[in-house]
Amino acid sequence: MRPQGFLERLLQLAYDEDLGAAGDVTTMALVPEHLLGEGELVAKEALVFSGAEAFLAAFAYVDKRVEVQMLVSDAQRCGVGACLARVRGPMRALLVAERTALNLVQRTSGIATFSAKVREAVEGTKLRVVDTRKTSPGLRMLSKQAVRHGGLHNHRFGLFDGILIKDNHLAALGGNIREAVARAKQATHGLLKIEVEVSNLQGLQEAIAAGADVVMLDNMGDEEIERAIAVAAGRILLEVSGQVSVERLSRLAAWGVDWVSMGALTHSARAVDLSLNLRPTP
Amino acid sequence: MRPQGFLERLLQLAYDEDLGAAGDVTTMALVPEHLLGEGELVAKEALVFSGAEAFLAAFAYVDKRVEVQMLVSDAQRCGVGACLARVRGPMRALLVAERTALNLVQRTSGIATFSAKVREAVEGTKLRVVDTRKTSPGLRMLSKQAVRHGGLHNHRFGLFDGILIKDNHLAALGGNIREAVARAKQATHGLLKIEVEVSNLQGLQEAIAAGADVVMLDNMGDEEIERAIAVAAGRILLEVSGQVSVERLSRLAAWGVDWVSMGALTHSARAVDLSLNLRPTP
Amino acid sequence: MRPQGFLERLLQLAYDEDLGAAGDVTTMALVPEHLLGEGELVAKEALVFSGAEAFLAAFAYVDKRVEVQMLVSDAQRCGVGACLARVRGPMRALLVAERTALNLVQRTSGIATFSAKVREAVEGTKLRVVDTRKTSPGLRMLSKQAVRHGGLHNHRFGLFDGILIKDNHLAALGGNIREAVARAKQATHGLLKIEVEVSNLQGLQEAIAAGADVVMLDNMGDEEIERAIAVAAGRILLEVSGQVSVERLSRLAAWGVDWVSMGALTHSARAVDLSLNLRPTP
Amino acid sequence: MRPQGFLERLLQLAYDEDLGAAGDVTTMALVPEHLLGEGELVAKEALVFSGAEAFLAAFAYVDKRVEVQMLVSDAQRCGVGACLARVRGPMRALLVAERTALNLVQRTSGIATFSAKVREAVEGTKLRVVDTRKTSPGLRMLSKQAVRHGGLHNHRFGLFDGILIKDNHLAALGGNIREAVARAKQATHGLLKIEVEVSNLQGLQEAIAAGADVVMLDNMGDEEIERAIAVAAGRILLEVSGQVSVERLSRLAAWGVDWVSMGALTHSARAVDLSLNLRPTP
Amino acid sequence: MRPQGFLERLLQLAYDEDLGAAGDVTTMALVPEHLLGEGELVAKEALVFSGAEAFLAAFAYVDKRVEVQMLVSDAQRCGVGACLARVRGPMRALLVAERTALNLVQRTSGIATFSAKVREAVEGTKLRVVDTRKTSPGLRMLSKQAVRHGGLHNHRFGLFDGILIKDNHLAALGGNIREAVARAKQATHGLLKIEVEVSNLQGLQEAIAAGADVVMLDNMGDEEIERAIAVAAGRILLEVSGQVSVERLSRLAAWGVDWVSMGALTHSARAVDLSLNLRPTP
Amino acid sequence: MRPQGFLERLLQLAYDEDLGAAGDVTTMALVPEHLLGEGELVAKEALVFSGAEAFLAAFAYVDKRVEVQMLVSDAQRCGVGACLARVRGPMRALLVAERTALNLVQRTSGIATFSAKVREAVEGTKLRVVDTRKTSPGLRMLSKQAVRHGGLHNHRFGLFDGILIKDNHLAALGGNIREAVARAKQATHGLLKIEVEVSNLQGLQEAIAAGADVVMLDNMGDEEIERAIAVAAGRILLEVSGQVSVERLSRLAAWGVDWVSMGALTHSARAVDLSLNLRPTP
Repeated sequence: MRPQGFLERLLQLAYDEDLGAAGDVTTMALVPEHLLGEGELVAKEALVFSGAEAFLAAFAYVDKRVEVQMLVSDAQRCGVGACLARVRGPMRALLVAERTALNLVQRTSGIATFSAKVREAVEGTKLRVVDTRKTSPGLRMLSKQAVRHGGLHNHRFGLFDGILIKDNHLAALGGNIREAVARAKQATHGLLKIEVEVSNLQGLQEAIAAGADVVMLDNMGDEEIERAIAVAAGRILLEVSGQVSVERLSRLAAWGVDWVSMGALTHSARAVDLSLNLRPTP
Repeated sequence: MRPQGFLERLLQLAYDEDLGAAGDVTTMALVPEHLLGEGELVAKEALVFSGAEAFLAAFAYVDKRVEVQMLVSDAQRCGVGACLARVRGPMRALLVAERTALNLVQRTSGIATFSAKVREAVEGTKLRVVDTRKTSPGLRMLSKQAVRHGGLHNHRFGLFDGILIKDNHLAALGGNIREAVARAKQATHGLLKIEVEVSNLQGLQEAIAAGADVVMLDNMGDEEIERAIAVAAGRILLEVSGQVSVERLSRLAAWGVDWVSMGALTHSARAVDLSLNLRPTP
Repeated sequence: MRPQGFLERLLQLAYDEDLGAAGDVTTMALVPEHLLGEGELVAKEALVFSGAEAFLAAFAYVDKRVEVQMLVSDAQRCGVGACLARVRGPMRALLVAERTALNLVQRTSGIATFSAKVREAVEGTKLRVVDTRKTSPGLRMLSKQAVRHGGLHNHRFGLFDGILIKDNHLAALGGNIREAVARAKQATHGLLKIEVEVSNLQGLQEAIAAGADVVMLDNMGDEEIERAIAVAAGRILLEVSGQVSVERLSRLAAWGVDWVSMGALTHSARAVDLSLNLRPTP
Repeated sequence: MRPQGFLERLLQLAYDEDLGAAGDVTTMALVPEHLLGEGELVAKEALVFSGAEAFLAAFAYVDKRVEVQMLVSDAQRCGVGACLARVRGPMRALLVAERTALNLVQRTSGIATFSAKVREAVEGTKLRVVDTRKTSPGLRMLSKQAVRHGGLHNHRFGLFDGILIKDNHLAALGGNIREAVARAKQATHGLLKIEVEVSNLQGLQEAIAAGADVVMLDNMGDEEIERAIAVAAGRILLEVSGQVSVERLSRLAAWGVDWVSMGALTHSARAVDLSLNLRPTP
Repeated sequence: MRPQGFLERLLQLAYDEDLGAAGDVTTMALVPEHLLGEGELVAKEALVFSGAEAFLAAFAYVDKRVEVQMLVSDAQRCGVGACLARVRGPMRALLVAERTALNLVQRTSGIATFSAKVREAVEGTKLRVVDTRKTSPGLRMLSKQAVRHGGLHNHRFGLFDGILIKDNHLAALGGNIREAVARAKQATHGLLKIEVEVSNLQGLQEAIAAGADVVMLDNMGDEEIERAIAVAAGRILLEVSGQVSVERLSRLAAWGVDWVSMGALTHSARAVDLSLNLRPTP
Repeated sequence: MRPQGFLERLLQLAYDEDLGAAGDVTTMALVPEHLLGEGELVAKEALVFSGAEAFLAAFAYVDKRVEVQMLVSDAQRCGVGACLARVRGPMRALLVAERTALNLVQRTSGIATFSAKVREAVEGTKLRVVDTRKTSPGLRMLSKQAVRHGGLHNHRFGLFDGILIKDNHLAALGGNIREAVARAKQATHGLLKIEVEVSNLQGLQEAIAAGADVVMLDNMGDEEIERAIAVAAGRILLEVSGQVSVERLSRLAAWGVDWVSMGALTHSARAVDLSLNLRPTP
């Protein structure tokens, strides 16, 4: 089960921004309170959909009486012109929620669509392409979900559910990987694995010796990565990070790298084009 | 003065996502409580900076003792490698705040940088290029500010500070523009201007006759826009909206269109590449 | 549509004040949990009703099972003894909500009743009598609504939806109205009108020349207002503010003043006398 | 010590109403960020001041750098033209806080001023004039304080700190006062006194027999009150409630009534006239 | 009626601790969204139950669709193996709520069970055994309720609903009890009784002379208490506090002490052993 | 770094319970606003201290001017009569915070003291005694910290930072451990270890075969545990859970069990006896 309150708080923030203290003055002035409306969410380009829960919640936040019927599921591919959902309810609520609902699902479906494209490049291999913490503030859960809807995997959710020892942490300990891993094992509970970021083969060897579970090879070239794979010899999980293009992925997969992380999945995915066509219910 | 609480709520959401209930377990295990650190925010590409307030607030949220010295101002152009800010304070706080601070300013500076590029296309003309409400949830104020830092203008902030009568509103009134404008004038207070979205010249004429202040020409081709300008003859402000490319901007500026709105400023700007290099204070 | 949360927050504050941490100790001690009750809201003087939504919300906040049947609508005139609403539900909830519900509608109906009296004085004229921001903290929306229920109009809702350049703002710019209006036009979005407060005819002329949309004639005597109307000659909207008695209103209306603002509508309206008679449901 | 959070929540509500999501657009456009200002709070009529804490808090909420120097204390009498406080700080903050600060202290000083007038009527007697729960939502603490600043006393703060058995409670128990008091003694803790509302002498006798601590004589005429005093013979505290005019107070005081409660103290006190004169610091 | 929000805030805190930002990762990975489950709350030792409302709320917080059928009432005695409640609903919600629900009712039933044991010692006497403010943070209401469910009484709820003048308060006034009681009577409203803590007979006599309502005999030995009872001679309520064992209670009851307060009721009650057995609904 | 807000929310809840809406009426009536006070926190029994941060925060919450000087550190052993901290500041704040501060540290020091006693039983062995999620609602972080201060270790913090597959989860999958572990590996990110609860040796073998990282042997007798250790042969971490007495611990340690979890550490630790002696500063 998911923690409660995050999506609610995001919507609250979004509507507080959009409605301010005075509300939708145009709609209040022009649209009668009891007028009903309806409409369709339409894909204006091919996409992989993600964000059903957020889309529903965006309307429910404004008015519980709005009915949303999803015609696609999260992770589903849709062609141009596909009708993704129908909405029906008080016209005022539909008009108020329209922009916020679209702002959300255009972004999440954008991430899923981009992830699906990356997924194709590693289809059939054992390589896991994973996301990072480079998500838009407030959209961590929705973004990580969208990555999975696109067929890829997640890295740790945040700073709390995995030990990732970076160069800055090592610097604080004089660069001593053995010491760092030992301290992490002592101070944290036993269900968290320990990953160490290294920038060369010596670091890799130290991490293995220290008993780390995963090593992140940071910004290494192809040649060095091949050597790292030979050094590791299956004794530790290997994550490649930094400047990974799609065509490089198949190479890394072929060599047997375990994970590749890509920040671009969440910070550079383009929003997809969606529209909501509304009309008064006849 | 700005309303209080929005930036704070966004940061709270971002840190709650990232720290969960258990916190930064790696940093707590490895970095001594009293270790001090320092570092620089560096531009890894040319950009127009935006987001100083959010950058400072992201560190202050974690630990009031972090000192941030901005070396650039909002709206300032910076070259590759430019040092944008120095941070100094408890190492634990620097490590915790790093990702959230970067997630924010990479996006806001991305918007400012894109806006500045658009600005160049209309430099020296009277055309106002304005943003829309297509902002990432929770980032409305920061995004609109970034557009200004890039040299462009804002459209209304939200649904509360401007009357914008769209086709959906008109549909609710049988398409009667005169009636819609009259109702808006009656029901709303007198310091809000009234804008009407029209899709053809007849709509434009009705809007002028109804006493609207601004007309939005929605998705019109160049030819129709030229005719609209002639019809309006300066009696009403004209906004062009929909599918506006950068090279089309100069044409629209030359004809005397007043405003052009571009959703892409906030929904399609690419995040700029920034890094924060940290080290223990010697 | 209205922003959510304001009325809820006001009720929360009101009930937190009244129930504290221990609750209604008398009712918990004496009234059985399952006892049902009912009662009527009665007008003990003639009034114009305002506050149906707040009245309903005050009971719903305490117990969703309370049924409230409104017998009058907002803006409706009611005579002494009129029954305005019936309530029915758990007796404990009725007893707890009674005072808070009354505290709200006595104030809002007081504002509507006073506004209706002022409205009579300008009936048939084009003069708009408008309210101000002098509302009781937390009651802005309810108070402004009550003014409309009494037949008058609103001025801007708050500091965010209209430019009102006061003497203090001008002082900061060396009193230069032209400069002030130019800056406001440059820095704010285009759907907000600009109003300038002036205290003499020279200010009025400068405001017109600067392209302001509305001028507020602050604390001017009748003679000076007449001259101002002549100077303006319909080129700008004129608002009269300060020390406006009811009989002066007809004079101002006759001369063609556009708006008159009255702080007393919201800060000096007397609460009307209402009572809620409760009894156990037989 | 006072509970924290109530005043903060009230201010938050007030500023959220006034600043919305876009803030004070006029001030941001016209007043430079670093301009300093100053001014005085001036009494435009004779009054008893109340609300120093709220006045300070209203400025501190907007900007901690604003300095407020109170020149009068709560409960102090001030003549027309008296300077009550000086403020000094960032001009933007002064302009934003002005209206909210005034909206608060005009109301609280209004209550203190009215209370002081009532106080004069009972000066030198043992009669306690007390307030009620008829306060504006969110202003309970400030209003009850203002009553004390005017020289009168408080009744219970809310539903949680005193047993007050009203006719509606009695109705739920078939009107049995003895049973009601017994239940209240059994179910509540021992530091709360028990008051019973009665409408005739029989009720008074039952309340005394039941061991109540206080009796509220509701809407009784002078003659009946005199008889009630004789019946009570000092065995129970007597509170008179309902339709108490100022001149009736001295009569009640002379007869030896213990308390008189007046709702008007908080629901009908007129706001006093105050102004804040601001200017840029030279 | 009870104040709203406290139980909700406690549950929010508990679930925020337990679910963090990423939620129940095991349940989300393994248990299908639509799987239904059911189970029983079973007493693994004899107990007096308390906490039905909290138990229901703990499940409702996670998913409104969970149905809880209580098979026992608050204050009811249950033997080993008794089935206290049945739950039924989405399996995911049952798994998530299980620990939080148990954490609550194990503690509250522990308090009720301990209180019932103490109650037996004073059965048939007029002695009131009362609790203190030594409750676990956030559990005041639930703990005080559990004391009543065990058959004992409450002392004041908090600092707001009773005057209790302790030695520290007296120290601030030079130890002058008469002065302290007089000030309390003057400054507080008239429905709160006044209790004074004294440590010897002189203090008792001063408190009686000052007109206090209750005296707390702090940490006095049996002999001194007997003398105090003689001194008081029924003129004031006597509370004994400090180091009261169960067998001492009957002695105190026999002598005619009015109240005995025991902190152990809420700070030392052992949690009772309960289990929730869940299974998929067949 | 720790997530912000949890301790603050707990204190807010505690003070809201204790101060209600009217505050500490005794202290406000009797103690002058500017009176300063001071005092000592004294151990009335031998203990291991835990809770310095909460103790400081409890005073700071009420008044930032209170100075707290800790004389012991978390995890430090203290004898009877030891002075643990000095407080100094406004007397009103000291009186208000006293009970809440004590309520917190008496509980956390109780947990640390109990944990230290358990720690002695396993001193010098490699056995990790770990806590559970059976903490008092709102006290998860403080309780887990106290366990570490007593020299023991933590299990996972909540449901979000470790996969723990219990019998109820398995039941939902027809008891198929292989399938359950495979799903967990697929659906969750790679830095979380997977633990499986088993009740017999067959389960243990399946868990090893499925690639689980840890196995929890639930409620097994000594004999079965010895066999489990032989079966596991170091291929998997072994946790023993359920009914573990202190003397059994040394046996389990000797056999080479990795972890033993004890709910009693947090749900059955007795609060230690502490007092705060206050006096006006001379």
